[in-house]
Amino acid sequence: MTTPHISPTHSPRNVRHLKCVLCGREFSPTETLYTCLACGPAGILEVIYDYPYIAQRFTKEMLAKNAERSLWRYAPLLPISDTERFPPLQVGWTPLYPVQRLRRQLGLEELYVKDDGRNPTASLKDRASAVGIVKALELGAKEVTGASTGNAASSWAGASASLGLKSYIFVPEKAPKAKIAQLLVYGAKVFAVRGTYDQAFDLCIEATERFGWYNRNTAYNPYLVEGKKTVALEICEQLHWEVPDKVFVPVGDGCIISGVWKGFYDLQQLGFINRLPQLVACQAEGSQAIKLALESDGTIRPVEANTLADSISVSLPRNGVMAVRDVRRSAGFAVSVTDEEILAAITTLARSTGVFAEPAAAASLAALQKLLAQGRIDPKERIVLLATGNGLKDIESALKAVGSPMSIEPRLDDVEKALS
Amino acid sequence: MTTPHISPTHSPRNVRHLKCVLCGREFSPTETLYTCLACGPAGILEVIYDYPYIAQRFTKEMLAKNAERSLWRYAPLLPISDTERFPPLQVGWTPLYPVQRLRRQLGLEELYVKDDGRNPTASLKDRASAVGIVKALELGAKEVTGASTGNAASSWAGASASLGLKSYIFVPEKAPKAKIAQLLVYGAKVFAVRGTYDQAFDLCIEATERFGWYNRNTAYNPYLVEGKKTVALEICEQLHWEVPDKVFVPVGDGCIISGVWKGFYDLQQLGFINRLPQLVACQAEGSQAIKLALESDGTIRPVEANTLADSISVSLPRNGVMAVRDVRRSAGFAVSVTDEEILAAITTLARSTGVFAEPAAAASLAALQKLLAQGRIDPKERIVLLATGNGLKDIESALKAVGSPMSIEPRLDDVEKALS
Repeated sequence: MTTPHISPTHSPRNVRHLKCVLCGREFSPTETLYTCLACGPAGILEVIYDYPYIAQRFTKEMLAKNAERSLWRYAPLLPISDTERFPPLQVGWTPLYPVQRLRRQLGLEELYVKDDGRNPTASLKDRASAVGIVKALELGAKEVTGASTGNAASSWAGASASLGLKSYIFVPEKAPKAKIAQLLVYGAKVFAVRGTYDQAFDLCIEATERFGWYNRNTAYNPYLVEGKKTVALEICEQLHWEVPDKVFVPVGDGCIISGVWKGFYDLQQLGFINRLPQLVACQAEGSQAIKLALESDGTIRPVEANTLADSISVSLPRNGVMAVRDVRRSAGFAVSVTDEEILAAITTLARSTGVFAEPAAAASLAALQKLLAQGRIDPKERIVLLATGNGLKDIESALKAVGSPMSIEPRLDDVEKALS
Repeated sequence: MTTPHISPTHSPRNVRHLKCVLCGREFSPTETLYTCLACGPAGILEVIYDYPYIAQRFTKEMLAKNAERSLWRYAPLLPISDTERFPPLQVGWTPLYPVQRLRRQLGLEELYVKDDGRNPTASLKDRASAVGIVKALELGAKEVTGASTGNAASSWAGASASLGLKSYIFVPEKAPKAKIAQLLVYGAKVFAVRGTYDQAFDLCIEATERFGWYNRNTAYNPYLVEGKKTVALEICEQLHWEVPDKVFVPVGDGCIISGVWKGFYDLQQLGFINRLPQLVACQAEGSQAIKLALESDGTIRPVEANTLADSISVSLPRNGVMAVRDVRRSAGFAVSVTDEEILAAITTLARSTGVFAEPAAAASLAALQKLLAQGRIDPKERIVLLATGNGLKDIESALKAVGSPMSIEPRLDDVEKALS
């Protein structure tokens, strides 16, 4: 498989180079490509910034005065050429809730939920799509593509629709109905691949090479982590630069957790914060390749993915190498939870905070509950749970977690009977 | 049917009195009740403000400096006692998109979409629930109730859950699955009434009297319009106090459109704006009681409701009298659209703006398209479309508007075949 070149018309001044996560080889941002020329698709490229350059143009004081309430408030820290004009959909600056009832229920002193289901297409993936679509525009692309279990795809289709780009999306056949509906409504050409996410992913890269579409695949396009990192930037700013002790992140491909790490790392390099949080990788027991790697030699080996949390259901985590590295750098670790624990966490979260999360998004609370039960959490820790997607994305799973309405005739007697 | 008293512990200083929409009788806010003592449930009460009092404490300059990005930035214009402490969920300050692609497509000079599907439970109803739940807290209520076709209910259940109040919800049996799922996930006790919305509504009021729950029924609880008006306040502020020429509002019970009118009216009274927009009431052909009243003697007569746009499917509009009055005061009018036009508008909106709206929410675009086709819109007008709820609320209807994915084997040849 060859690695197609992508050549940006402008080079962002704040970027030093792109660096291969495997061999460390450096590439100029002007000769931009998806992955390392030497290592191929496994050689994911990281964006390396010129922090002294950025520090002269981006300060806490400037942020405090910035009225922009979206991820573009962090434009000087993003790999984009034009830091003035942005795509139309309002992405990011989602609420960080100090969930007092849940906190008390769990016996903790400081607990927050970052509700990223509040993004335009109802998941954190909108952050990556926002940066990705700007890169597509820089290249003059008119057609874009992506493979996804669902959220990245619907997010990409929505971002494309808002700008009039044509999108070609590859999903595994069994993706939840709501995510498929979003794609079709946004006018994407949708290929429901009779196979796994992993097969859809590979097919999408083949199609990219054949048709010249701009590709947004996770751990292939180097700019997505940069979009995802904005969730960490927001958490820090919303906590008035007090760093959390632990951040719980749902993990499938491992791309979001690397984004979270990158956000905190950037802020540390700029001197905005003086330490990094521990990252807790929250995986479904039926899809825990990154946990197994973290707890052994660090090597990613494919598993047989089997969890109802579709957004983190992955056999071979595409960003596994970087995710393992970043969790370790943060002195973090992984926890896996069962589907039953995830379903229970959906209702616990909704009933104590008003936040309705999709299964993958509730995995962070399920993981916290497991660690608490094992006595592995100090009640004084400052903890942030990342809720990565809205519960409306997967009603079928949510309904498994709850009972049914009480069917009654329109009579007060029936109400009384139902209550007794 | 008796009208239960509700007695607030404090009286908001900015409120002069509550006034019956039918007989004009005035009630002190300290002897607060749901509806007029003389007229009964049909005697909806309006909140009448002390504008000179408010004008001394609330200016455009103060707003410009206010960092709060939620409906609570307008607290001095809301009927609440404590203007400092608010419920936890972040409601309002939703995007007002200058939808340039859709604008050009329709041949208009100035067009905006207010995306209220971005609220916590994904509909505009969160605005009313936010104010309603504050009133419940002022009374020390621990249990709340409401009847709804879906959005108001899920919004009320979410607000209640975020504060630990118990909710009892009455829905018509055929409410969309996603809305029922939200209710159950939030831990509401849900009564699926074998009957219409109207029967569920009446039963809920009976239950309120029997059990003493705090009631959020539309056009019964006088404070909901006050929450809903914040969408108009935001539109004005986001347009830098340039008043739209027309605002298109999906209309079922007629409560939202009265809220929109009240918001503009308040701002005019305060001198923030110098004129009012025309309000266009957008109804489904299968549920157009308010349109029929507007185009005849103004009297609301029940219809046989039959539309897939569940959020505006109403036989007897509970807020009909006020809605007819307010549309007329605005020099506005009504338009009705078919279900087919609504479904087509869902995809048109999504594909040109990235905003995925539920059927009722897309009725505003369908109505605009109808007026354009009839030559009843001046292309120079400044137009705002209200998108009242997120498309994820009703996937089944959305899927009727679109095709299916192309099912393929994971082979590039299959992609090529599907494209040709």
